[in-house]
Amino acid sequence: MPTFKLVLEYHGGEFFGWAVQPGFRTVEQTVLDALDTVLGSAPPLSVAGRTDTGVHARGQVVGFTVPGEAPSPQALLRSLNGVLPCDLAVVAAESTAGDFDARRDARSRTYRYRVLARSARSPFERDRALWWPHPIDEPALEVCARALVGTHDFTAFTPTRTEHVRLERDVRRAEWRHADGALEFWIEADAFMRHMVRVLVGTMLEAGAGRRDQAGFAALLEGAPRSSAGPTAEPHGLCLESVSY
Amino acid sequence: MPTFKLVLEYHGGEFFGWAVQPGFRTVEQTVLDALDTVLGSAPPLSVAGRTDTGVHARGQVVGFTVPGEAPSPQALLRSLNGVLPCDLAVVAAESTAGDFDARRDARSRTYRYRVLARSARSPFERDRALWWPHPIDEPALEVCARALVGTHDFTAFTPTRTEHVRLERDVRRAEWRHADGALEFWIEADAFMRHMVRVLVGTMLEAGAGRRDQAGFAALLEGAPRSSAGPTAEPHGLCLESVSY
Repeated sequence: MPTFKLVLEYHGGEFFGWAVQPGFRTVEQTVLDALDTVLGSAPPLSVAGRTDTGVHARGQVVGFTVPGEAPSPQALLRSLNGVLPCDLAVVAAESTAGDFDARRDARSRTYRYRVLARSARSPFERDRALWWPHPIDEPALEVCARALVGTHDFTAFTPTRTEHVRLERDVRRAEWRHADGALEFWIEADAFMRHMVRVLVGTMLEAGAGRRDQAGFAALLEGAPRSSAGPTAEPHGLCLESVSY
Repeated sequence: MPTFKLVLEYHGGEFFGWAVQPGFRTVEQTVLDALDTVLGSAPPLSVAGRTDTGVHARGQVVGFTVPGEAPSPQALLRSLNGVLPCDLAVVAAESTAGDFDARRDARSRTYRYRVLARSARSPFERDRALWWPHPIDEPALEVCARALVGTHDFTAFTPTRTEHVRLERDVRRAEWRHADGALEFWIEADAFMRHMVRVLVGTMLEAGAGRRDQAGFAALLEGAPRSSAGPTAEPHGLCLESVSY
């Protein structure tokens, strides 16, 4: 039976996150509806990252197996983009192994969080960067980012109600950089816990405002409780950029 | 009497261009309404570039003189941003000479036109780049851009009904570059005629599709009629980036 891997791009502003929730417009439901229109069936989807309400994606990956006949990947891409709404698109499609699972097979995910650090708001960034009209100590941000690389216990950076069997994550890359008039935090890890990037950003911005020192930030990475970290940064600055397999 | 220079950023999608037109939402009218709210009067504005419906700006410049008392430039910036709608912002404000005229005193304007040259549309670019899902000969675009630099007669690149005393413009920079997943055309000139950048892009894209040769493109720069150039590219890819004084 034909199995496909799709790369999706979406603007999260008008989706209630990824997962199907009856009565809500979600990314998963919208993809399933489009598959049903194009293929006549809506197979179960595997997904690399279950993005929250308001979070964007440029490189979300889904996998599914079609019962019976299926079009070529390029024909499927064109057909789906013909029926998907303007805030969701398939940007790549390929045939893959029958046992492909977009979540389980992913080796790492990369997220980007954009911060517009200037006194005036921007009409172009209001739905895609956190506006931060405060002084910001960029070297302090960079020190925090460097402390993240490696294997750490991220309990402090996820809601306490979340149940995780394993609270350690392996961060391969974490850095702040300037891009296109904004400050961007890039992070790649084997996997992420719920809200993890947003709490990391909220906590680093406290360090960047001088309200948290570097040793204190590093100490959070050894299993400190959620209450010891900073606030959860707004979702609209966050984007799932890519997934590697 | 205090005279101000403001730099404006706006998303052109929901404005009917720059100039006041009774019954229409325009950028000029919106700025005048905000000045009236903040200062109690709406002085005449000079403006560097009268952008068309749908065209964006990151560096539009306006000038005006206030009759009587006025706040500091930073207080004016904050007050205006407090009353302007989310698709328009003041990004810089300064006091300037009493005879400042944003149009007459400008030495050059710089525009950017974005083209999303890929097979899949993008939810993030739909309001800020022309989607161009066709093969494109980038070296041909670059040859066209190089031909633009210098002083030329741009009659072919503006609507025939436009009356211009002078049809020559002095292009200081013209180049295509890759940025953020898109192809961008950057052009700086002393001044621009109506639709000029959009017709240049529409015509260069014909050259990039092999439907127009380089010698033919260069010949357009010697006062050829409008009918010999290409179509006017969509407004939403265009942005007034900056004005130099």
